[in-house]
Amino acid sequence: MTDSTFSQRLIDKLGRDAVVTAPDAIAPWLSDWRGLYTGHAQAVVRPSSTADVAACLALCSEARVPVVPRGGNTGLCGGATPDASPANVIVSLDRMHAIRSIDTIGNTLVAEAGCILGNLRRAAADEHRLLPLSLAAEDSCQLGGNLSTNAGGVNVVRYGMTRELVLGLEAALPNGEIFHGLRTLRKDNTGYDLKQLLIGAEGTLGIITAAALRLYPRNDVRVVVLAAVNSSQQALDLFELLFERGGPRMQAFEFFTAECLDMVLEQVEGMRAPFAERHPGYVLIELADTVDEAALRELVETVIGEALERELCVDAAVSESIAQVNSMWRLREEISEAQRADGPHVKHDVSLPIASIPAFLASAGERVNKHHAGVRLIVFGHFGDGNLHYNLSRPAGAPRDFFKQHGEGLTAEVLDEVARYGGSISAEHGIGQLKREYFSRYKDPLEIRLMREVRKVFDPHGIMNPGKIF
Amino acid sequence: MTDSTFSQRLIDKLGRDAVVTAPDAIAPWLSDWRGLYTGHAQAVVRPSSTADVAACLALCSEARVPVVPRGGNTGLCGGATPDASPANVIVSLDRMHAIRSIDTIGNTLVAEAGCILGNLRRAAADEHRLLPLSLAAEDSCQLGGNLSTNAGGVNVVRYGMTRELVLGLEAALPNGEIFHGLRTLRKDNTGYDLKQLLIGAEGTLGIITAAALRLYPRNDVRVVVLAAVNSSQQALDLFELLFERGGPRMQAFEFFTAECLDMVLEQVEGMRAPFAERHPGYVLIELADTVDEAALRELVETVIGEALERELCVDAAVSESIAQVNSMWRLREEISEAQRADGPHVKHDVSLPIASIPAFLASAGERVNKHHAGVRLIVFGHFGDGNLHYNLSRPAGAPRDFFKQHGEGLTAEVLDEVARYGGSISAEHGIGQLKREYFSRYKDPLEIRLMREVRKVFDPHGIMNPGKIF
Repeated sequence: MTDSTFSQRLIDKLGRDAVVTAPDAIAPWLSDWRGLYTGHAQAVVRPSSTADVAACLALCSEARVPVVPRGGNTGLCGGATPDASPANVIVSLDRMHAIRSIDTIGNTLVAEAGCILGNLRRAAADEHRLLPLSLAAEDSCQLGGNLSTNAGGVNVVRYGMTRELVLGLEAALPNGEIFHGLRTLRKDNTGYDLKQLLIGAEGTLGIITAAALRLYPRNDVRVVVLAAVNSSQQALDLFELLFERGGPRMQAFEFFTAECLDMVLEQVEGMRAPFAERHPGYVLIELADTVDEAALRELVETVIGEALERELCVDAAVSESIAQVNSMWRLREEISEAQRADGPHVKHDVSLPIASIPAFLASAGERVNKHHAGVRLIVFGHFGDGNLHYNLSRPAGAPRDFFKQHGEGLTAEVLDEVARYGGSISAEHGIGQLKREYFSRYKDPLEIRLMREVRKVFDPHGIMNPGKIF
Repeated sequence: MTDSTFSQRLIDKLGRDAVVTAPDAIAPWLSDWRGLYTGHAQAVVRPSSTADVAACLALCSEARVPVVPRGGNTGLCGGATPDASPANVIVSLDRMHAIRSIDTIGNTLVAEAGCILGNLRRAAADEHRLLPLSLAAEDSCQLGGNLSTNAGGVNVVRYGMTRELVLGLEAALPNGEIFHGLRTLRKDNTGYDLKQLLIGAEGTLGIITAAALRLYPRNDVRVVVLAAVNSSQQALDLFELLFERGGPRMQAFEFFTAECLDMVLEQVEGMRAPFAERHPGYVLIELADTVDEAALRELVETVIGEALERELCVDAAVSESIAQVNSMWRLREEISEAQRADGPHVKHDVSLPIASIPAFLASAGERVNKHHAGVRLIVFGHFGDGNLHYNLSRPAGAPRDFFKQHGEGLTAEVLDEVARYGGSISAEHGIGQLKREYFSRYKDPLEIRLMREVRKVFDPHGIMNPGKIF
């Protein structure tokens, strides 16, 4: 139903200020931020309460109107962008941004899905607690999107994915019922853990309206090491040592290649090479603790000393101030921006059994090169999680539209190689529209069938986020 | 189907040695270890491969024969005990006890569901890794049971429940298909995380045949504190301080009342009171780390010194040797045995929002006492997880069958009070047969409906573990 009657019904139920229907006001909501996808919609609904989200879904369900939930629009797979149907209703929770509670005994934070992640992190820090989910988009992404994509980020090696931080969820189901699962309990073995289905469902099972998250102690004592390695295998050996010795203090173990650093130094102003020589790869390790900087520094220096002696790295620098912590991190964090500045490129967010990364890098590199010589590999990522951002930039001198012709073929080569190693074609970004075809190619048909049937349980009329995942 | 034809079909498919049919050989499989439940079965099947588990389920599915999966029979809710139907087939995975791999770079352990938990812990330790799941029954319980009940134990405050340790699962589904989800990936955002449904499903969705588990660094440096507190509120304030300062090192925070300690000292030989005076409550805290015992001890002593000064506890002893670590732990671990020796009793495994524990203890105690004066409260548990074992022993001088008359009424009082605080009627033991009625009373009907429909997706003919959960 796309006529004005339906919009009027939404307005009658939710109020004039909650429903946007003017085409020019809707326009900014129709594309993903990278501009890969643009769709259509008859209205954008911005409810201000869980009851209103549920009421909106009840109306859409009754009229069989498709619903596209939208968070901060920072996703990389088009999961929050509507398809071509003019009937779509986009539901944004940006007006639901209350922090309902922070409990420093139970160590929980309860917040609405429209909250900006960075705001939640700061609110927790103010109460001497850490909300560990941290990622580049944290000052624009929304909690609902983080939950719906099971977001990862830089601290997964220590704290796990978003899923592992969730104690409870509140959600509006497609038929307008409210799932009252906003429990703050640490332990609750009463039947199937249904909230696990909503996490990472990319808005296909309902709309998460609020979550209870687990908080950790603040780790204000931080030491960062930037180590140069001669191979990815050496990086893994270093990982093994740090994991054993650093124990729970290790909260990031990032890797990037010489080509990544070259690009950062070339494209981003004010960056300096960290070592006198160029090395094949670099590892950025962060250890953090609640107390005693001297003890942490001593631990790090002892372990890195041993690593140099045992030839698990070829050079290393240990941060001596927060300014150095930040400048070391910038070398890693600016890679995406540098690659964007370099021009069109193709991203692959994949994961592998950690020990097989070196073999994968060798064979995938060979396949890419065989498919088209000169393609530049910009490979970096969360090594400690087996997660690589295996990105491609066009060959030097190639036209800007190089990937129009070669992108799909190159992606097929990369993902096929990932599958051969038992890896995942989407480590932390989800499926959305972008990887739908690859999802159906590589996922076990039995799992897809079960997912379809589970989807039907939650959404019998198929109104939720059509065209996403499968 | 219960006639000998079906048993013969099982034998033809799986081999004579995998199928037990003689009534006297079946008898030991028909009861739970506490002797609360006894059922019937036509056969016990002991497959030696995933394919055989699947083949068995396919036969049962075709003939609509009910299947009862059984692990180490250490459960407390009768979840692995068959019901009264003579048609039941019990499936035990005790012959599937291979460790398929241990990876010290990816930090994963892949093992079959029939493995004894303690053996897995020792195998990991041999490779300098920790499998953190630890509970009283670890030398007889099996991994499959741990997964199917989402077991908890003493280290949940640091490492989470069994669910949080699972990277991948392999399972046989009721129709005989095999769910090939035995991935060791740390990150995999490709669709719904279906394995989460199998975890904690108590064998109602299929039979888990193997799992990939997350390993941690070994924490060989351990310091235990036994602190005396004058109230549960004081214990919580102490928890808050330890959490903030101890950070990730805190791996147990246990509480027990004076009455628990009295019973241990009375019933268990060779136990000594830890303090000169009797105190209202006791807290056992373990901190553990990968390195540097002196630093850990200094941290603990500083924090406990501050706690004493700020009156967050009234007395405290810090372990000075592994022998002391063990003897402090025994005070806590012997409570169950002491209560058993004292005579018949009723167990409640509940959880609460942590901060509401003191209020709950006050009001639940009042309700119990009002229902029947003199009932002895034996309350202990994993305070740091909000998990209480809120157990009752009969009044002094009451007949041994006191709970025959009063047990049900008292349980209703306790669980009703748990529900009033938004707690869970089963924190870590599951539902099984024991708590089915309370499950249907306290669980949201919407959640029960969704669970029933999900169950139908996996098990359309309803053959799996009938009469369990709901």
